[in-house]
Formats: sequence, C-alpha cells, structure tokens
Amino acid sequence: MLTGLSDSITSNKEETLLLSDTEFDRLADIASKTVDASGEIILRHYLARGNVYNVSDANIQSWTSVAAQAEKAMISLILKELPDHAVYGKQTGWNNCIEPTIPEFVWVLDPVNGVTDGLLPTFGTSVAVVHNGKPVIGCINNPVAQIKTIGRRGKTTRNGDVVRTRACEHLEQAYVDINDPDYNEDAKYAYNRLAYKVGETFFNGNCIAYSELAAGMLQVVVDSAVEPFALLGLIPIVEGAGGIISDWQGNQLSWRPFPASSVPRDGFKVVASADLTTHQQIIFELS
Amino acid sequence: MLTGLSDSITSNKEETLLLSDTEFDRLADIASKTVDASGEIILRHYLARGNVYNVSDANIQSWTSVAAQAEKAMISLILKELPDHAVYGKQTGWNNCIEPTIPEFVWVLDPVNGVTDGLLPTFGTSVAVVHNGKPVIGCINNPVAQIKTIGRRGKTTRNGDVVRTRACEHLEQAYVDINDPDYNEDAKYAYNRLAYKVGETFFNGNCIAYSELAAGMLQVVVDSAVEPFALLGLIPIVEGAGGIISDWQGNQLSWRPFPASSVPRDGFKVVASADLTTHQQIIFELS
Repeated sequence: MLTGLSDSITSNKEETLLLSDTEFDRLADIASKTVDASGEIILRHYLARGNVYNVSDANIQSWTSVAAQAEKAMISLILKELPDHAVYGKQTGWNNCIEPTIPEFVWVLDPVNGVTDGLLPTFGTSVAVVHNGKPVIGCINNPVAQIKTIGRRGKTTRNGDVVRTRACEHLEQAYVDINDPDYNEDAKYAYNRLAYKVGETFFNGNCIAYSELAAGMLQVVVDSAVEPFALLGLIPIVEGAGGIISDWQGNQLSWRPFPASSVPRDGFKVVASADLTTHQQIIFELS
Repeated sequence: MLTGLSDSITSNKEETLLLSDTEFDRLADIASKTVDASGEIILRHYLARGNVYNVSDANIQSWTSVAAQAEKAMISLILKELPDHAVYGKQTGWNNCIEPTIPEFVWVLDPVNGVTDGLLPTFGTSVAVVHNGKPVIGCINNPVAQIKTIGRRGKTTRNGDVVRTRACEHLEQAYVDINDPDYNEDAKYAYNRLAYKVGETFFNGNCIAYSELAAGMLQVVVDSAVEPFALLGLIPIVEGAGGIISDWQGNQLSWRPFPASSVPRDGFKVVASADLTTHQQIIFELS
C-alpha cells in the first residue's frame, strides 16, 4: 500500500487548477471570515469560564451550546456570500443540500475541535472547502492563541506568512503529537508503538497540532477517531506546507458525503508528517 | 506520613496573619503587575513565531532568551517598588540577596514555565512571594489564554473572580493532569499507576493545570521534577481555592533557599487535589 503513497498525496493538486485565482482568493477570504465569526463566540465563552463553578451547574453554558452558536454564525456568513454552496456542520448536519445531489461546493465545519471542558487552550475551529469531492481549502483557527492557518492551492499561511514543514533526519529526533493515548485502543496502540522511538511526544494537540506541523514545529501528528468535520480541513493545510497526510496504512484520505459508509466505523485514523521518509517510517511502525 | 497531612497543609495560614491587609493587597498588586510585564514579552514572541522556520535557525530568538528578557522586566519592576526584597529567578538566580542572609521577603520567578519550543499555548509565568520561608502569594499567568490566577490569604481568584476547587465523589470520575508521561521514570510511574483508575487524563498542563484545578476544572495534578522556581507559587493558589498540595508521600512541600540540599535531587514530586479524600487516594496509588 505504501507504493501508491506518492500518487495519492498529490492527487488534490490538479483539482485546484479548475478554479481561477480570483475564485480561490474569494473562497479563502470567506473561510478566514468564517473562522473569525466562530472564534469571537468561542473566545468570549472561554474567557468567561473563570467563575462558572461558583454558580449552579444549570447556569453553565455548555461547550456544545457554544459550538452550536458558533456554527450558526458560520453558516449564516457562508450562505449569505455563497447561496448555492452546501454546508455540512458537526452541530447541524446538512444545510442547503438535498440528498443525494451533492453540490459542487461543500463547506465542512467543526466549530470547536478538541475541547474537553475547555480545559487547555488547545482547541480550534476547523473549516474545509470541498470542491467536487476534493478539499481545496483548509482553515484551522485557534482563537485563544490567535493563530490562524490556511492551506490553499499548494501553499499554507500562518497569520498571513507562508510556512513550510521542517523535516527531521532521524525518527528519533522527531517531535510527535499523539492525540490522548488513553482515548481509545487505537490511540494506546499508537502511543505504545511510537513513544520510545521518537524524540519527544506531545498530547492533546487536536487540530492545532496539524497547524504546528505545517509551521515546522513538530514532525508528525498521529490521530484516531477523527470525524469528517475535522478531517477535511487538515489535508490542504498539511499538503500546502509540503507535508504528507494519509491514513495509518498510507492510503489517501477521502470522504464522500453519500453514502454515509464512506466514513470508517471508528472514525478516520490520520497520520501527517513533515516529509515522506518520516511518513513511511511512522506508517511502518503503525501498520 | 498521611496522618500528618491535615496539619501540614494548613500550616501556611497562620503565617499570612503576620502581614496587614494593606501590605497584602500591595504585594498581590505588584505580583499581578509583575506577571503582566512578563506576559507582554512572552506573548509578543509567541505570536511572532509564525514564520520563524522560513529564516535561518540563527535568526530564531530562543525561548531561553525570551525568558531572560521577561525575568529582567519582572525583577526591575519588583525592586523598584520593593528595594529591600530579594528575588530568586530561574534565569538569573539570586538578586538583591547576600548569602547566607535570607531577607524577610523573597520573590521566586519562573518567567516561562512549561514551554517546549512554545508548541502549545499551555505555558505561563509563575511568581511566588515567600515571607519568612512561607509562600504567601502565588500567581500563575497564561498570557496566551489571558487567564491570571492569584492565590493569597486563603482565597484564589481567576481574572478577579473568586474560585474554588470542585471535589469528585469517586476517583474514577476524576479529571487528572499528569505531566508528560514520557518525561522521566517518575512521570511514567505515575501514568502507569493512575491512567486506568481515574476518569480522564490530560497531559502537558504545567503550571496552567494547577490554575485549572483551583477553578474546579480538574481534580488532580500529578507532577515530577518540579524546580523551586515553579513550585512555590502553586501552594497559595491550590490552598487558597480549598485544595490540597503535597509531595507524593503526603508531606508538606517546603523549600529553604540555603542550603541548596533542601531541593530533592530530581526536583520536587508534587500532587495537588481538589479535596482531601481524593488526595489520600492518589497518594495511596503513588506511594
């Protein structure tokens, strides 16, 4: 399966040529505004949590409710600008789409990815623009850390500056983010296989970890149980920065909205790396 | 050793009565301004990291250099307001102190606690005001997340609001932060003993994890290899919020500046809990 890796990871690039620069710029600009709209709502809630435990639990606004508000703001902004696009959101499912007709453009939204009671500021909003089934723009925004990463047409920017992944010479030097090793059996397996073979391990990175990978700050992200809402934005961000992203067997990650069976039963297993050699080594360890 | 626990954890309270409310308010105010001065420098660096890997490594300002700048700003502020106080900082060691005379007041500073290449925004500045050998004020500030926690005279505030720890009924419900399980043998041991007995595990919390404990967002923090620079601010914050903090055997944490042997060879092993029952259970598991 590794033999097909180089092909599969480049397969998005042709697709992006179907859109003009002007169209692309407009979509990226709207994606950026969309995560800003979400970020404003999330940040307000995050900073207000300070004394939530002084009042009765009934008064605590849940993160789910905040995510729903954020998603509503995002959808409203997208459909106002692009009334013929469809939106698939974690909180609301399909909007502006009559199954089984898949519109040319689908926006996939995860308003609050990686929050567990908002404990640590390592969560963010993830947005993907999918064109004819290919994710062509990805945007990950951490409103707390004020870092917005956008991947589009072969380049990835971080707060406006172009960034690139940074390769490591040996696996034992790699900085690796493994999402919470206690989360499920897959995560434990990845942790046990990798923890002692790599340089440093980090945890709980969620979508933010992929934007750190794109900026050269770590070399590998290993993830499991990823939902399509969070998955699709990762691809343009990692690939645009020169990185490699695939499933744990090295296969291209793909998602088709219908039928639902295109999503693996336990979610996607994702691995992203700064360079091909590291990626192949990680896949060898995980397979 | 557990039998002495209730005594040891209350022993700071008498000490704080030796200072008037006015003196206390002034010290807390200066502590708050001190972390702000540090936070401004740290935040500027954190946000500027975006394109650091596009330039040669030689141009990257290291976190150590940023920490040194932040510490300098803090010391300058403290000594201007309080010229007879001593300062013991992670970057510069002793300032305004002639060994072996220990001044009545010692400020202990860790300008950037918990950064590993600034990867995730889970680091902060930690400050303690030590009066006659007792930490009476603690301040932890996360400049990225804009959360400042201050523990003083039996109360802890988070961005100005009084907060309290939140107990859990059973250990298997507890949210537990274990600092990076791969960090050293002690951390691995703690992870192996606790991971499957508690509700949820979090990692990489560093000083921020203690402020989340004080605000009721998690129930236990287990830490190892803690330096005195980071240790002392934790005590007023955890105790002021109603929590318990000790070493892994349940002994009171104490630090005396001279002789240096008062610091354990591998640093302090620290455990903090929301309530005494949970604390005793955790210590039983770790002992």
